[in-house]
Amino acid sequence: MAPVANGRVLFNSYPTGYPEPGKTAVYDTTETIDLDTVSLNGGFLLKTLDISIDPYLRGRMVQPTTSSYSSSWEIGQVINSHAVGIVLRSENSDVKVGDHIVGMLEHKQYSVIKSLEGLRVIDNPSKLPWSAFVGVLGMPGQTAFMAWREYSSAKKGETVFVSTGAGSVGSLVIQLAKLDGLKVIASAGSDEKVQFMKEVGADVAFNYKTTKTEEVLVKEGPIDIYWDNVGGETLEAAIDAAKLNARFIECGMISAYNTGYSFPIRNFFQIIGKSLTFHGFVIGRLVAKWGAEFYKTIPPLVASGQIKFKEHIYKGLEADGDVLLAVQKGTNNGKAIVHVADE
Amino acid sequence: MAPVANGRVLFNSYPTGYPEPGKTAVYDTTETIDLDTVSLNGGFLLKTLDISIDPYLRGRMVQPTTSSYSSSWEIGQVINSHAVGIVLRSENSDVKVGDHIVGMLEHKQYSVIKSLEGLRVIDNPSKLPWSAFVGVLGMPGQTAFMAWREYSSAKKGETVFVSTGAGSVGSLVIQLAKLDGLKVIASAGSDEKVQFMKEVGADVAFNYKTTKTEEVLVKEGPIDIYWDNVGGETLEAAIDAAKLNARFIECGMISAYNTGYSFPIRNFFQIIGKSLTFHGFVIGRLVAKWGAEFYKTIPPLVASGQIKFKEHIYKGLEADGDVLLAVQKGTNNGKAIVHVADE
Repeated sequence: MAPVANGRVLFNSYPTGYPEPGKTAVYDTTETIDLDTVSLNGGFLLKTLDISIDPYLRGRMVQPTTSSYSSSWEIGQVINSHAVGIVLRSENSDVKVGDHIVGMLEHKQYSVIKSLEGLRVIDNPSKLPWSAFVGVLGMPGQTAFMAWREYSSAKKGETVFVSTGAGSVGSLVIQLAKLDGLKVIASAGSDEKVQFMKEVGADVAFNYKTTKTEEVLVKEGPIDIYWDNVGGETLEAAIDAAKLNARFIECGMISAYNTGYSFPIRNFFQIIGKSLTFHGFVIGRLVAKWGAEFYKTIPPLVASGQIKFKEHIYKGLEADGDVLLAVQKGTNNGKAIVHVADE
Repeated sequence: MAPVANGRVLFNSYPTGYPEPGKTAVYDTTETIDLDTVSLNGGFLLKTLDISIDPYLRGRMVQPTTSSYSSSWEIGQVINSHAVGIVLRSENSDVKVGDHIVGMLEHKQYSVIKSLEGLRVIDNPSKLPWSAFVGVLGMPGQTAFMAWREYSSAKKGETVFVSTGAGSVGSLVIQLAKLDGLKVIASAGSDEKVQFMKEVGADVAFNYKTTKTEEVLVKEGPIDIYWDNVGGETLEAAIDAAKLNARFIECGMISAYNTGYSFPIRNFFQIIGKSLTFHGFVIGRLVAKWGAEFYKTIPPLVASGQIKFKEHIYKGLEADGDVLLAVQKGTNNGKAIVHVADE
């Protein structure tokens, strides 16, 4: 077969505010690949199927000197994130043609990969959609499950507030909290998202753009646990609404990502009087401890439909730059997936 | 004997900024007491010897609606705090004349007390000064010891930064950290205090009024643990200097107490990328777990001189209002004690 274009997404410039489609990351078709003859050098050839675009990726669009929990993308590099692909050819004995692979992959149509290091061959007995393995069964799902188990100290009858409750992390947190017998208050930025939060079990779901968070928390709180995906004023409202000994699970601060990371928290002194605990984390530190329980617990609940998830599928790698912005603005409605190709 | 004046300190008005001597709390001598005939009603008569004045007391000088970890003083009430007294008369079989009692006591020369509830008869085999039982052997010492044990996760070779390192809490934290094999960076607000921090073992001691905290932490950090007694800009500097997985022990925020409790923390987003944990606490929640170990560990180390402490003794209950201000301004040099009377 003749060489074909190998579309890919290159990091092009550091944004100062929100990522800019066509400027921050650009789609490029100048590279070609001959799928039949490209040298594998003992590795394997992967065709990318589904790519996860996550809010935390904003942290990789910063100059390397800025404090961030993930390494920065360099200008000109192919950007990468969690993705699923199918093996087209293999010289690696651990990887068979037709295997599905998940892990941190480059945003390109085809990749030659040296080894399985950092990647995983997917075991999918319940025939779940492959995209689920970068969502509810992937990093976002692990983030929700592992941090909930590690930090929530949840007790039946307690009250939790979850921000971005319609997202891939937040919606699973809602469902885990309901399974544990908690009252769940959840916020998101559209009425459609509010509807989804109710579907997954939130007792109180509201649109923070039309209803004031502090008023909801005064009425429905106080709270024992706050799952924070946003920071900023919402975090302040949660601190004001916190009970004695409340736990704060600091998973993300989308409100800070695109505004210079400087939103002030003005009521942090309450941490002392209320004996609050704040757990910041990145998922890497929890995987060794909770990985086995995650894979034992969550896939069966997803397969049986007891745990629900929602995806927003964007078609084609060309959409990448738009989706990088969408997840920062919250205009996606469900876990953002770039569907690159069918099998 | 004829009745004598029973000097006492009344809470007079809520300060907006710093407490004001002669206005916030006033010394009053209108009450009299006949020490021989006053009815005990099954209780005991106590002569106050030494009173502890602590920074946290600013939190009791606020309107009851304001969030605070200790109950507010009411206008006109006799103020109270940890203190030591000697029993002059007793109708309580658990309390003998000559016993020394420690606990939350009213700021008056003589008190008739109904029961031992919340108080303790002091066992003092090493003949330590009675004032030590409201300092290194009292609430401040317990605060340092119990929270260090509970929250520091200290490992030999790590680095800790302690603010207000010359205070009754901070100076014990420095010594506990050195016993655990850590490198200790400590700050205070005068050269005399810097000298004391060096005497108790701080590896790096500096005057934050003449040396920039952030510059010291850049040079001597990064840090694994921050013991926070001040909040504000110092807390921000500690967040900037924190290592991955660093622990923040939030013991006090003196910088916020007198400035409307609104100092903004502008770099709190780092909690996520650095996987930081912040433990707010009040000592009450730790006493049941760590009380026995405290009394087994600390008094012998103090008796042998291995653990040092420093007191600033103010003479007479009339000084009370001045000392309430002094501990907020940090003009005391050592644990602030109001010495009311000799035995």
